[in-house]
Amino acid sequence: MARWLTLAACQTGPVQRASTRAHTVARLVALLEQAASAGAELAVFPELALTTFFPRWVLQPAEIDALYEAEMPGPVTQPLYDAARRLGIGFAIGFAERVMVDGKVRRFNSMELVGPDGQRSGRYRKMHVPGSTEPEAGTTVHLERRYFEPGDLGFPVFDYGGTRIGLALCNDRRWPETYRMLCLAGAEVVLIGYNTPQMLSEAPALAHLRMFHNHLPMQAGAYQNTLWIAAAAKAGLEDGQALIGGSCIVAPTGEIAAQALSLDDEVVVHRADLDLIAACQAVNFDFARYRRPNDYGLIVERAGPPAAFTSP
Amino acid sequence: MARWLTLAACQTGPVQRASTRAHTVARLVALLEQAASAGAELAVFPELALTTFFPRWVLQPAEIDALYEAEMPGPVTQPLYDAARRLGIGFAIGFAERVMVDGKVRRFNSMELVGPDGQRSGRYRKMHVPGSTEPEAGTTVHLERRYFEPGDLGFPVFDYGGTRIGLALCNDRRWPETYRMLCLAGAEVVLIGYNTPQMLSEAPALAHLRMFHNHLPMQAGAYQNTLWIAAAAKAGLEDGQALIGGSCIVAPTGEIAAQALSLDDEVVVHRADLDLIAACQAVNFDFARYRRPNDYGLIVERAGPPAAFTSP
Repeated sequence: MARWLTLAACQTGPVQRASTRAHTVARLVALLEQAASAGAELAVFPELALTTFFPRWVLQPAEIDALYEAEMPGPVTQPLYDAARRLGIGFAIGFAERVMVDGKVRRFNSMELVGPDGQRSGRYRKMHVPGSTEPEAGTTVHLERRYFEPGDLGFPVFDYGGTRIGLALCNDRRWPETYRMLCLAGAEVVLIGYNTPQMLSEAPALAHLRMFHNHLPMQAGAYQNTLWIAAAAKAGLEDGQALIGGSCIVAPTGEIAAQALSLDDEVVVHRADLDLIAACQAVNFDFARYRRPNDYGLIVERAGPPAAFTSP
Repeated sequence: MARWLTLAACQTGPVQRASTRAHTVARLVALLEQAASAGAELAVFPELALTTFFPRWVLQPAEIDALYEAEMPGPVTQPLYDAARRLGIGFAIGFAERVMVDGKVRRFNSMELVGPDGQRSGRYRKMHVPGSTEPEAGTTVHLERRYFEPGDLGFPVFDYGGTRIGLALCNDRRWPETYRMLCLAGAEVVLIGYNTPQMLSEAPALAHLRMFHNHLPMQAGAYQNTLWIAAAAKAGLEDGQALIGGSCIVAPTGEIAAQALSLDDEVVVHRADLDLIAACQAVNFDFARYRRPNDYGLIVERAGPPAAFTSP
């Protein structure tokens, strides 16, 4: 029996710091309604979808807590979960997670998967946290490591009504290990949210490649791991910083099946043929037959190339 | 001081089974001369550059040995090594390797790296050997596993006059682990040879994607591992089978810097800026800082996704 899952990438335009959370949630509900009316069964929202991308600033301790969610859903985000149940559509959403563990505050850049019943189906905490804890000379300020610990949940894969779903956030999508780990854990679909600046002051000569470098690793990740990918950007001029769009749905062939054309709130939908996964595996990627896990040791043994090189 | 290395991808047209090895070597020498005259310092030839892609047939035992090299260089291939020394240009070449080990014949799909002094600088044996040992119903005959053992040398990286060179062959380029292993072993440049049929009878609906699936993983592999890649196809109608071309030089940005347009003997050259590697690492890929090798365990623990899936 053919298996299908209609996916929606719900891009948002900027979420300014001055916006209220309630206003932002109403925008997300409108996007979810649009996705559902186009037949989507599962939608993805951006990373940090509820707030501005605040790691672009050094903030005072007193300013920080208001930017995190202490509970999901909370009173202000509950309408989104209610909409999911009302519309019968699931979603994944990126948010700043603030959690008490053993009496200590911990903060993660997280994504939550919610089923069409409005209940949580899974949670992911961003594994590849880029940037720094303090501003670094000559680079665009990017303080994700100031505001978030690296994820501590690994690369989990969740059952979603018979389809296996993995989650990833922004910088995770640049690393081939993200897709491979999710593939080996059984994922068929990966949902990604991101915030990607158009300009980095450390690399003005590479600025024209930002969209290419957005799509390239996702297309290769989809192809090399026979995955469907739905990826949603927060786009446009957010609190003075230009973010790229390019939200998309990528097939296991690596082809972009659908993509956003604006830098604003926009939904792209594709009816994903899940059987294409097996068809693609049959051509080149019979993993169990051809991969050589015993020969990939360096991947888990060292983080980067050796400082000193010795020819064998 | 800026570092440069001028690379050449020496694509060949078909090498028919009826061709003599001496004729083929003369073609390769002509390509090497063309590469050297364009300023190239290092050239790459295709996989199995000296013969037809014979794994497309079931051959009789008595027919096989003539298709392998028992020594490199041998009397017939020596002119290529002499040309390298005369021209002051190194090269890598794919060939069928037949070697006696402990009184037993072993066969590998190999690539040899030769310095501008005409001496061997390194050898690689294809790690990801695709296909089967017997024809399989419904698929294009592809018997690499009949004729070659999987490589037993891992993913070595060789010093080439101060630049670190990795080698890979054909199917290797589809697997992200190939590039990652070479990156982590210190490679700056990867030389790839390939033979890729245009049509696979098991996947007629994907035939139009063969060139996309050639370039996509190399572009992503270059970008995600900050590598230069030079890749050479054996192209054109070889003994009745159409092979794609698309030989190319890919930058660490993932951009194709130069590519072949024909299905014939053709040289593409690019003066590679080796400093671009560090520039690309500075933007997204500070490996030592951001990779999480302790969390990639599945990559070395299992070959493929689990048969039975359990949600966490």
